[in-house]
Amino acid sequence: MPPSLTPNPSYSLTFRVQLPNRPGMLSMVIKALAEGGGMLGQIDLIQQTRKISVRDITVYASSSEHEDELISIVKLLEEIRLLNVSDRTFDLHKGGKISVQSKTAIRGQDDLAMAYTPGVGRVCLAIATDRSRVYDYTIKSNTVAVVTDGSAVLGLGNIGAEAALPVMEGKAMLFKQFAGLDAFPICLATQDVDEIVNTIKHIAPVFGGINIEDISAPRCFQIEQRLRAELDIPVFHDDQHGTAIVATAAMLNALKVVQKDIAQVTIVMNGAGASGIAVARLLRQAGAKHILMCDSKGCIHRNRPDLTPEKLEFAGDQRGDLATVIKGADVFIGLSVGGALTPDMVRSMAERRIVFAMANPIPEIQPELVENDVAVMATGRSDYPNQINNVLAFPGIFRGAIDARVRQITDEMCLVAAQAIASLVSQEELAPDMIIPSVFDNRVAPAVSSAVRQIARERGLAKA
Amino acid sequence: MPPSLTPNPSYSLTFRVQLPNRPGMLSMVIKALAEGGGMLGQIDLIQQTRKISVRDITVYASSSEHEDELISIVKLLEEIRLLNVSDRTFDLHKGGKISVQSKTAIRGQDDLAMAYTPGVGRVCLAIATDRSRVYDYTIKSNTVAVVTDGSAVLGLGNIGAEAALPVMEGKAMLFKQFAGLDAFPICLATQDVDEIVNTIKHIAPVFGGINIEDISAPRCFQIEQRLRAELDIPVFHDDQHGTAIVATAAMLNALKVVQKDIAQVTIVMNGAGASGIAVARLLRQAGAKHILMCDSKGCIHRNRPDLTPEKLEFAGDQRGDLATVIKGADVFIGLSVGGALTPDMVRSMAERRIVFAMANPIPEIQPELVENDVAVMATGRSDYPNQINNVLAFPGIFRGAIDARVRQITDEMCLVAAQAIASLVSQEELAPDMIIPSVFDNRVAPAVSSAVRQIARERGLAKA
Repeated sequence: MPPSLTPNPSYSLTFRVQLPNRPGMLSMVIKALAEGGGMLGQIDLIQQTRKISVRDITVYASSSEHEDELISIVKLLEEIRLLNVSDRTFDLHKGGKISVQSKTAIRGQDDLAMAYTPGVGRVCLAIATDRSRVYDYTIKSNTVAVVTDGSAVLGLGNIGAEAALPVMEGKAMLFKQFAGLDAFPICLATQDVDEIVNTIKHIAPVFGGINIEDISAPRCFQIEQRLRAELDIPVFHDDQHGTAIVATAAMLNALKVVQKDIAQVTIVMNGAGASGIAVARLLRQAGAKHILMCDSKGCIHRNRPDLTPEKLEFAGDQRGDLATVIKGADVFIGLSVGGALTPDMVRSMAERRIVFAMANPIPEIQPELVENDVAVMATGRSDYPNQINNVLAFPGIFRGAIDARVRQITDEMCLVAAQAIASLVSQEELAPDMIIPSVFDNRVAPAVSSAVRQIARERGLAKA
Repeated sequence: MPPSLTPNPSYSLTFRVQLPNRPGMLSMVIKALAEGGGMLGQIDLIQQTRKISVRDITVYASSSEHEDELISIVKLLEEIRLLNVSDRTFDLHKGGKISVQSKTAIRGQDDLAMAYTPGVGRVCLAIATDRSRVYDYTIKSNTVAVVTDGSAVLGLGNIGAEAALPVMEGKAMLFKQFAGLDAFPICLATQDVDEIVNTIKHIAPVFGGINIEDISAPRCFQIEQRLRAELDIPVFHDDQHGTAIVATAAMLNALKVVQKDIAQVTIVMNGAGASGIAVARLLRQAGAKHILMCDSKGCIHRNRPDLTPEKLEFAGDQRGDLATVIKGADVFIGLSVGGALTPDMVRSMAERRIVFAMANPIPEIQPELVENDVAVMATGRSDYPNQINNVLAFPGIFRGAIDARVRQITDEMCLVAAQAIASLVSQEELAPDMIIPSVFDNRVAPAVSSAVRQIARERGLAKA
C-alpha cells in the first residue's frame, strides 16, 4: 500500500510513557512528536505520583515507516521511559471485530426445551409446512451475507479470502451500526465464477440478501448477473452499485452547485472497472448523455479489439489518452489509481469544473494541488470534504430491499436511493465543500431505505 | 411429530386472562387447567384494580392438540375473559434467536478509519503476508460454522434447509452459552455430497471449525471423511461424535453403577444410522468387545447383501430380530425410533441391565414402563434423569480443538472427552439416576476442552 498523504487514524499509535513529574516534561514529548510530523490525538493520565506520571499519548502517523520514526523519536528522549507502544488499528482487530450473540439466555431446562429440542421442532415443522415462515421465525429476515473471493480488496488487489476478512467484518459492523442488519462475512476459497455462484446459491437459505464485495471485474458482472437470475433474494455488488449510488448523489448536488444540467455536461470517466462501469450506467439512468470512458489504454474507442461487453456499452468515436479527451470536459470522475490526473489536465477542462477523484486510498489527484482550479472536488477519503463513501448507500439499500422483501434491487431503486441521499443536503447547506451528507448523518439510511421501499411498492415488487 | 409423553415447556402457552377481582376466581382457572392435563408454570400479575385483575398464566401442554384443548377450556370459563394466548416457543423464535454484534461501536471518523478503510488495509496486508495471522486479527479463531442440509433434522426427517435453520440457531446459542464460541448457521440448499463438500471447503476461510449437523447417513460419513482429508480446520459431525461422546461418558458411569466391565458386557445397539455407528465405534475405542448391532431388519449379519461399509464394521454371526438378540444382553442402546423396545424385551436381558433409550423425542421405551426392571435407565430427554445430551460435548470439544488449533478431532480426543465428562460425577454422587452431569453444570465444557487440549499437546497435534 503506498503511503498516505497526511497523518491519519489508520496509522495511529498509543505511546505509554513514564515522565518525571515536573513542569515541561509532557510538553517536551508532545513537541518532539509534533516536530516529527505526528498529529496529536487523545492524551490520558494513567497514573501520577509525586515523582512520576504515566500517560497514554495517541499520535497519528502517515505511514508505517512514519510510525517507526515516531517510535525512534520517543525512545531517544532523555528522562522519558517508553513503557509500551500499541498500534491502535491492530489492537482493534485482535480476535476480530464482530461476534454472534444469543438474543435470549438459556438459563435452564425450560429455555433449552423451547430454543432447542424438543420445542424447536415445532417451529421447524411450521416452516417445513410453509417455507415463507422462515422470514418470521429465523434470522433470515434481518441477515445479509457479505461475500468476497478476496480478488480485488480495497486498493490491495488479489490478496485472497483470509486477508479480505477484516474488510468484510468491518462491513458487517457498518450494516449493524447504520441499518440494524445482522451481516456475516463469507470469504470464499475459490475465484472460479461457477464455483462462486454455486456456493452462494447453496448457502442462500439463511440470508435475506447477498452483498457481493471486492470481486474483480469482469467476473463480478457475471456472478451478480447469474445470482440475480437464480436467487429469490436481493443480490447487490457494492463496489458497483454502492459506489454508483453515492457518486450519483454527489454528482446531482455538484451539478446544482455549478448550475449545469446533467444532460448537457461532458463527463470523462477514468477507470472502467466494476465501479467505473456502474457509476457510468447510473449517471446515464439519471440523465447523463455525454460520457467518455477511459481505461489504462485511453479513451475506449468502439474499434478497439479488446473490449468486454461492459466496456463496449460505453465505447464511442473519440480516440486519445486521458489528457486529450479531458480537454473542455465539465466533469472528471476517477475510479482508477492514485496520481492518474495532473493539475494541467484539470486546468484544461471547461469552466466550473467538477472533479471526483475517488481512487482509494490515494486519489487520482491530491486535492491541495488544484484547490483553486476546481469548482467542486470530491474524493473517497474522510480527511477531505465531500467524501464519496459507500457507507451512505448499502445499509439503507439492504434495509429497504429486505423489509420490502423484493426479489431484486433494480436500477430504479439505486436511482431513487441516490436522489434520497442528495436531497438530504438542503438548498441552504449546498456548497462546493458540502455536496453529500456525512457518513454519520443518521437520516441517511432511513431516507434510503424508505425510498427503496416506496418505489418497490409503486412498481409492485414488494412482497412485504 | 408424534405427541410427547408429558406436559413440557416445548408446548407452553401463556394465557393472559382478565378475572373478576374476588376470591376463588384465580383458583377456578388454575383448577380447570390442571384438570385439563396442563402443568402450571409461572403466574404473573399484570394489572389489578378493585374490580378486575389481569394475569399471565403459563401452562405446559403435551402436544399441539392438547394446547388447543386447554385454550377451549379457558374460553368456556364463565366470567373469565381470555385477552391473549401466546405460544412461548413460537414467541421466542420471532425474528430468529441470534444476532451479529460489533465488538466496538463506530462513533466517528477515527473509528471508521481504523475498523474500515483505510486502516483495515494494513491488517489485510499483514494477513496477506502471513496467512496464519488470520487467527490473530479476525473472528476465525473463535468462529464455528454449524452446517446442515436439512436432510435429517431432529426426528423430523428431510425437512430442508429453511426449516432446519431454527435448530442451527439454537445450536449457535449453545456454542455461545457453554463455550463462548461464535457460531453461525449455514443451511445448504443442496443435498448432493460433492456440492456440500465443495461449498463447505469454499466458505472455510472464515471459520476455525466446522460442525456438521443433521445430515442423513450414509452421506454424512462421506462428507465428514472428505472434509477431514481436505480442510486444515477441525470438522465434527455432532450427530455422530457428540452423541458418541456423551453416550460413552454415561455408559462408563452406568457400568460402574452395575459393577460390570466394559470388556465383558454384551451391548445390543438398535439403530445403525450415523449416531448408532459412532456410538458403537467409540464404545469399542473405550474397550467394548461384544456389540450386536441391529437395524430395522434385525441383527446385522455379515452375509446380508445390503450392508454399507459402516454397517459391515459391526456385522457378525448372530441372526434374528431385536427381541431375539437382546435376550441375556447386559446393555441396550437405542438410537432408533420411539417404541422400538418392549418391557418384555427388557425383562429378557441379563440382571443389572442398562437401558439407554435415546430416540428423540420419544424414547425406544417409556421409562415408567420398566422402572423396576432396569438397574440404570437413560434417555435423550430432559424430563427424565440421566439425559444423554450432546450439549455436554460439542461446546467443549470445539473450544479445545480450536484453542489448540488442531487440524482434526481424533477418536482419542473424543474418548478423553467422554472420560472427562464421566469423571465429573464423583464416586459419592454416582447412582442409578445420576450417571451424567447436568447440561447446566458449568464444569463440563472447561473439563472437556482441557482434556482435548491436553491430549492434542501430548500427541503433538496442537499448533497453538
